[in-house]
Amino acid sequence: MNITQIRNATQLITYAGKRFLIDPMLAPKGTYPGFPGTARADIRNPMVDLPVDVQTLLDADAVIVTHTHADHWDQYAVELIAKCKPIYVQNDSDAALLRSQGFTNLTIMSGETTYGDIRIVKTHGGQHGTDRAYAVPELAERLGEACGVVFSHPDEKTLYIAGDTIWREEVAADLQKHQPDVVVLNAGYAHVIGFGPIIMGEQDVLNVHFQLPQAQLVATHMEALNHCLLTRRALREYVDANEAGDAVSIPQDGETVIF
Amino acid sequence: MNITQIRNATQLITYAGKRFLIDPMLAPKGTYPGFPGTARADIRNPMVDLPVDVQTLLDADAVIVTHTHADHWDQYAVELIAKCKPIYVQNDSDAALLRSQGFTNLTIMSGETTYGDIRIVKTHGGQHGTDRAYAVPELAERLGEACGVVFSHPDEKTLYIAGDTIWREEVAADLQKHQPDVVVLNAGYAHVIGFGPIIMGEQDVLNVHFQLPQAQLVATHMEALNHCLLTRRALREYVDANEAGDAVSIPQDGETVIF
Repeated sequence: MNITQIRNATQLITYAGKRFLIDPMLAPKGTYPGFPGTARADIRNPMVDLPVDVQTLLDADAVIVTHTHADHWDQYAVELIAKCKPIYVQNDSDAALLRSQGFTNLTIMSGETTYGDIRIVKTHGGQHGTDRAYAVPELAERLGEACGVVFSHPDEKTLYIAGDTIWREEVAADLQKHQPDVVVLNAGYAHVIGFGPIIMGEQDVLNVHFQLPQAQLVATHMEALNHCLLTRRALREYVDANEAGDAVSIPQDGETVIF
Repeated sequence: MNITQIRNATQLITYAGKRFLIDPMLAPKGTYPGFPGTARADIRNPMVDLPVDVQTLLDADAVIVTHTHADHWDQYAVELIAKCKPIYVQNDSDAALLRSQGFTNLTIMSGETTYGDIRIVKTHGGQHGTDRAYAVPELAERLGEACGVVFSHPDEKTLYIAGDTIWREEVAADLQKHQPDVVVLNAGYAHVIGFGPIIMGEQDVLNVHFQLPQAQLVATHMEALNHCLLTRRALREYVDANEAGDAVSIPQDGETVIF
C-alpha cells in the first residue's frame, strides 16, 4: 500500500490497487477562523496549503469520511467532489448530511462493508475527547461521534486508520482484535480549552507502539490546524528518545510512505 | 511561603518560618552516568550545576526525602548533610537506609507528623510509573515506593508536594482531599525505555489544574536529568496555549516563587 500524506487528516491511500481519499479538507490556507474555544484559536485554518493539485485527490476511486467536522469534510470538499463518487461514512446522521449536500453514492460502514474485494470495516471504541469532556452535554454534542477504518485484503497488509480518538482501553482492545500491520494515528494533540486533548499526542503514539510492537505507525493530523499542539519534530524527538523511532513514520505533507 | 527551585526536585522551602530542604541531590554537574534503560541514557547527571552555594542548603532546619532514588538522595547529600539533621522519610526501609548511612534524627512520616507547629503529612495514591511498568517485578522493585508531602500551618497556605508520581485517579482523590492552595509537581516527564513516563508531563500538569482550578502549581524536576523529556519552555507554551498559564509557575534553578 501507498499512503500519501496530504494535509491534516487528508490522505490519499492506494490499497489493493484502489485509490482512497481519506477525510478531505480541501480549502486553501487560511480559509477558516480557528476553532472557537480551542488552543491558539487566533490562528486561521488550514495553516498550510495543499501540497498537490486538488484534481489528484478528486480522481480517487472512493472517499472515506470518518466524521463530518470541518477539518475532515469541509465546504470545499462538498463543492469539488463528484456527487456520484462512492463515499463511506460512519452512521445514518453523517449519511443524511452528505445526502442533503447532493451526494448519491453513500455507504454506511458496518462490520461487513466492502469496496470490490477490499474489506472496509469501521473501528470501535474511539472517543473524540476525554470522558470529562463528554460529561458536558454541549461539548459531547460538539465533539460527537467519530470512527476509524480498517482495510484488509488477501494481497495487502492490514491497515488500521484510528481516526479522531484519544488513547483509551477500548482503542487498545480494538487494535488487539484487528492486529493491524500498519496503523495511521491522528497524533496532532488537538486541545479544547479547559478540557485537554481530543486526539492523540506523543504519549498515545507510544502507547499504540507498546500495544502493537510489530506494527508500523504513521502519524498524521499534524501542523495544519490551530489547536494541534504537537509538531512533527517534537514527535520525532520523542519516539527516538524512547527508542521507538523505527516503528513510527511522520510523513511531511506530500510525502508517501509504502508498506 | 517561599519556594526556591534549586535543581531537579531539590528545593529549599521556607514555610511558617522554617527552612526545609526537599530531596537533596547535591553532586556537581556530570557526576553520574545517565540512568540505564531510560531515555537519553548517554547524557550524564546532573546536567547542570547547583545554582547556589551548597552551604545554603545544608543550613536548612530539616530535610524531606520523598524516596531514595539517586536523583532525590545522592551520595553527596549523604556525605554533606549533618548526621543530626532532622530528616523526614516515607517508610521503614528508607529510614533503615539512612540510619545505616549514619543519620540519627529520622522521622517516618505518618498522617500526624509535625515539625514544631507545622503538620507534615505524607501524600497517598502516588505511583512512580504506569501500572504496566509495575506489572514487571524487576521494574516495580526498581521504581519502588515514593511519596509526596503536605505542609499545613494556621498562618500558611496548604502546600502539596506531589513527589515522583504519574497522574492517576488516586492522586486526584488525594488532591481533592487535601485541597491545597499550592501544588509542587515533578513535571519533567522522565521516561523508562519501553514503559513510558514515570513522573508527570505537561498533560498531567493540566489535569492537576482541572482538578484544582484555584490552586497555584509549581513545576519542578525538569531539565536536570537524562531521562526528563519536557523542557520548561515547552511546558510554558503548553499551559499558555491552554489558557492555564496564570496557574503555573516554572521557576528556573535558583529562582524563588512566593505564595
